[in-house]
Amino acid sequence: MTGTPVLFITRRWPLALACVLWLCVAGTPAQSDPLPSWNDGAAKQAISGFVARVTAQGGADFVPPPERIAVFDNDGTLWTEQPYYFQLAFAFDRIKVMAPQHPEWKTKKPFKSLLDRDMKGLAAGGEKALLQIVAATHSGMTTDEFAQTVRDWIATARHPRFNRPYTELVYQPMLELLAYLRGNGFKTFIVSGGGIEFMRPWTEKVYGIPPEQVVGSSGVTKFELGADGKPVLMKQPKVEFIDDGPGKPSGINRFIGRRPIFAFGNSDGDLQMLQWTAAGNGARFMGIVHHTDAEREYAYDRQSHVGKLDKALDEGTARGWTIVDMKRDWKAIYPAATN
Amino acid sequence: MTGTPVLFITRRWPLALACVLWLCVAGTPAQSDPLPSWNDGAAKQAISGFVARVTAQGGADFVPPPERIAVFDNDGTLWTEQPYYFQLAFAFDRIKVMAPQHPEWKTKKPFKSLLDRDMKGLAAGGEKALLQIVAATHSGMTTDEFAQTVRDWIATARHPRFNRPYTELVYQPMLELLAYLRGNGFKTFIVSGGGIEFMRPWTEKVYGIPPEQVVGSSGVTKFELGADGKPVLMKQPKVEFIDDGPGKPSGINRFIGRRPIFAFGNSDGDLQMLQWTAAGNGARFMGIVHHTDAEREYAYDRQSHVGKLDKALDEGTARGWTIVDMKRDWKAIYPAATN
Repeated sequence: MTGTPVLFITRRWPLALACVLWLCVAGTPAQSDPLPSWNDGAAKQAISGFVARVTAQGGADFVPPPERIAVFDNDGTLWTEQPYYFQLAFAFDRIKVMAPQHPEWKTKKPFKSLLDRDMKGLAAGGEKALLQIVAATHSGMTTDEFAQTVRDWIATARHPRFNRPYTELVYQPMLELLAYLRGNGFKTFIVSGGGIEFMRPWTEKVYGIPPEQVVGSSGVTKFELGADGKPVLMKQPKVEFIDDGPGKPSGINRFIGRRPIFAFGNSDGDLQMLQWTAAGNGARFMGIVHHTDAEREYAYDRQSHVGKLDKALDEGTARGWTIVDMKRDWKAIYPAATN
Repeated sequence: MTGTPVLFITRRWPLALACVLWLCVAGTPAQSDPLPSWNDGAAKQAISGFVARVTAQGGADFVPPPERIAVFDNDGTLWTEQPYYFQLAFAFDRIKVMAPQHPEWKTKKPFKSLLDRDMKGLAAGGEKALLQIVAATHSGMTTDEFAQTVRDWIATARHPRFNRPYTELVYQPMLELLAYLRGNGFKTFIVSGGGIEFMRPWTEKVYGIPPEQVVGSSGVTKFELGADGKPVLMKQPKVEFIDDGPGKPSGINRFIGRRPIFAFGNSDGDLQMLQWTAAGNGARFMGIVHHTDAEREYAYDRQSHVGKLDKALDEGTARGWTIVDMKRDWKAIYPAATN
């Protein structure tokens, strides 16, 4: 730091003035609705009421900012997950790109099924087939190389039904909710069954959630010295951690180390995360997105292969958690198209 | 938000005024040395120079705040690790407390050795013996219960040589460095071989590092519904992840998801973390605490069983990393005693 204190003050005056002006201006937008894409109703009221209670200094439910931890499932909670998880769409596209380097895939299931567009044959392989496809597309490269393939795919791939980039199929009401919580001193985290390294390259830009606040499933990485002597982390074809179902509270405990006071999910895979959040002391908020809008998005719950919502719907209803009825509660589903 | 904009402005004026006053006052302390416990010399200059370069807006080495990730080893880097890791002292004390509930330990090694104060017998058991002791004291309870035993121990246990609570045996120069980095927009993380759940109960108070910025070794936790129907996370006697040596870059990748630009360690267990940090693009800072002060703390390096510093000392010297000579570079070792 150079200069005398006097000079320093002088140089800082424009900033001080800007600060005062900002405080004047800030009064106006604060009056407006921070959740404009939410229709008035029980869900919206439950959210605003909760935030008001935990931020009211001196109130019985006040929670200090460092403990305002909010966790969100990703697939089906922050963005669409139909007709199948977008990470699977990424893996399928990667198989097609990688196929010329793998002539053996022409005759080897499940790769053959996928390349032949034989989705029934692929489905017959069950979870094992999907894990093989994920392993083949998510390992054998450095973490930096993988992040680049994700960025490239996200920039070009489009959803089969909506013909929009996948990152535009995020829920506008949830984007508003994330910003609203952060504006009220919350730290927002993703806690997803999806791959942590599949999400991190774009969550900061799309959700405002930085990499270090993304919790997810992961594969083992191995530290190696590359040919040029530079260290790399090689992605191994070995699952390290599945952040789903009962794994979600473990993932929260491991990555965050504090119990959330606010949790949002949409499927039975989120039930334990919601239970874990509910079991803490003091005010808590538990929310479930119920997909009820076949016209604007999708309608599914108890029978769905993707994002099955059955036990969590019963328990959430019985315990008075906030069940968002997408059709009724959301004025808009997606952000306005940018192109 | 209630009230008209005019009222709002009126109510905010005291804050605005406070803000202006703060900007005036802030000029003065900014002139003072943010690292008063560091003697003038190459190490201190390297730190200040690096921070100045990466924070200089428009400069060639400028790094945007979200990417200002700084990682610190804990044992031997932020606090003392002699005569043995403090977490081991905790485990030893727990064995004594738990012994009445485990009569079989009277005849069973390594517990017998420990209860008989037969440290040679304990050492003869090697790493396996220590893992057994850690497993016995770090599992079979809920995460909440474990955190409470750590808090109780930290509040009462004292170091055998210095007769001070262990959390007072943190390095004053490093506390200043952590605060200095945070004051310059860095996010500070611990990346330690120690147990993540042993550190989190006290790192926020002692280092200003919140639980979600603590990376460490961990055991498996299992989600269970307790007798009262309340969910708990039970600590299992199974290692999940060892955050040491080549595990440190993997831990950084998994928990933080960004490559640090600043890393500090003190032993060969930090070498890969330092290499990983060094291998990124742009300005980087790699630092090593060299324990050279037998009088005020301890002096050890290549031959030590705890915190061995051999390969990293050679590589750090060869590559021009900042090697802190504790005796020469640090004006004070510990914070002034509070009692």
